[in-house]
Amino acid sequence: MHGSEIQTLIKLLSRLPGLGPRSGRRVALALLKEKEKTLRPLLKSLTEAGEKIKSCLHCGNLDTNSPCSICTDARRENTLLCVVQDVGDLWALERSASYKGHYHVLGGTLSALEGRGPEDLTMGMLHQRLVQGSYEEMILALSPTLEGQTTSHYLADRFTPLGLKITIIAHGVPLGGELDYLDDGTLTAALQARRHLA
Amino acid sequence: MHGSEIQTLIKLLSRLPGLGPRSGRRVALALLKEKEKTLRPLLKSLTEAGEKIKSCLHCGNLDTNSPCSICTDARRENTLLCVVQDVGDLWALERSASYKGHYHVLGGTLSALEGRGPEDLTMGMLHQRLVQGSYEEMILALSPTLEGQTTSHYLADRFTPLGLKITIIAHGVPLGGELDYLDDGTLTAALQARRHLA
Repeated sequence: MHGSEIQTLIKLLSRLPGLGPRSGRRVALALLKEKEKTLRPLLKSLTEAGEKIKSCLHCGNLDTNSPCSICTDARRENTLLCVVQDVGDLWALERSASYKGHYHVLGGTLSALEGRGPEDLTMGMLHQRLVQGSYEEMILALSPTLEGQTTSHYLADRFTPLGLKITIIAHGVPLGGELDYLDDGTLTAALQARRHLA
Repeated sequence: MHGSEIQTLIKLLSRLPGLGPRSGRRVALALLKEKEKTLRPLLKSLTEAGEKIKSCLHCGNLDTNSPCSICTDARRENTLLCVVQDVGDLWALERSASYKGHYHVLGGTLSALEGRGPEDLTMGMLHQRLVQGSYEEMILALSPTLEGQTTSHYLADRFTPLGLKITIIAHGVPLGGELDYLDDGTLTAALQARRHLA
């Protein structure tokens, strides 16, 4: 029906996260219909980002420089290290503007099912940073899934001998969330972690 | 928080149809995390499609050639011409594999609100094709919106003097659709267009 170039483009777009065959077609069409307004700027931006953006060798963040702008920012607290699974989680925490320490991107969680052990994550680098740096507290901000929790406990066990404070972010009812719609696990966690108010 | 290259990329991705800031970030991250597997093939495909794909001068379809593969296909019925708004609609009809005639992409509908008149659409070319071609029937397959219907009536009025048969696709209850969830307009159309069964 249409050239193989369009088919290939739709196939590649459809594989991007959150897109499927239908949205892939829609995006391809939008790009090809208005080449000057959509395709050319995107091509330029993808080329530039592809050339310039790299993973920070220290923390795993994506940036134009390695060490990245967070690792080299002298205004950030060098006693706090927050461990996250993924760069997307780091971005989310940065958007909240509530944290001013350093980060460490693990690159995933331990997973027996997918055969991912400590050596597949950046735990060696984490160990090195904790030993060589001036960190006093490690905050674990992994996803509250079974695998995330397993990984949190593994990290706590492994790094307790280093003598630094190890904390984990709170799990409970999200702001604006309705109790009625929450799962049992979250409600149980919220109840167990209740705190004294008055 | 991250380089301006990433910000630009996220902004451009967020503007694509069906994507927003959140999905734009997700796609950018997926592209930058696995450059070899996602970014490079997409870049290559976008470059190729950008260079090779053009609008067919006859019907408005997007293809590597102009006239396109549908216009030059001798096996297709050269007595049937189906008028659609957009290339996406042409693709949808082709996927249904239920039509074997030619197409004409109008490029939109008449719109008083957006100030789009007949000269902003490909109606001149349509007139030329109807006069010069061997078409016996023009099928109107525009969207059943107010503007689509206005455009259908305009086309019918304008091309009736040419003496060819002008038809419009049926509007009614979609297969698999539940009456309960359908809007009043569709139900009214379905009732009015009822046909004798036995």
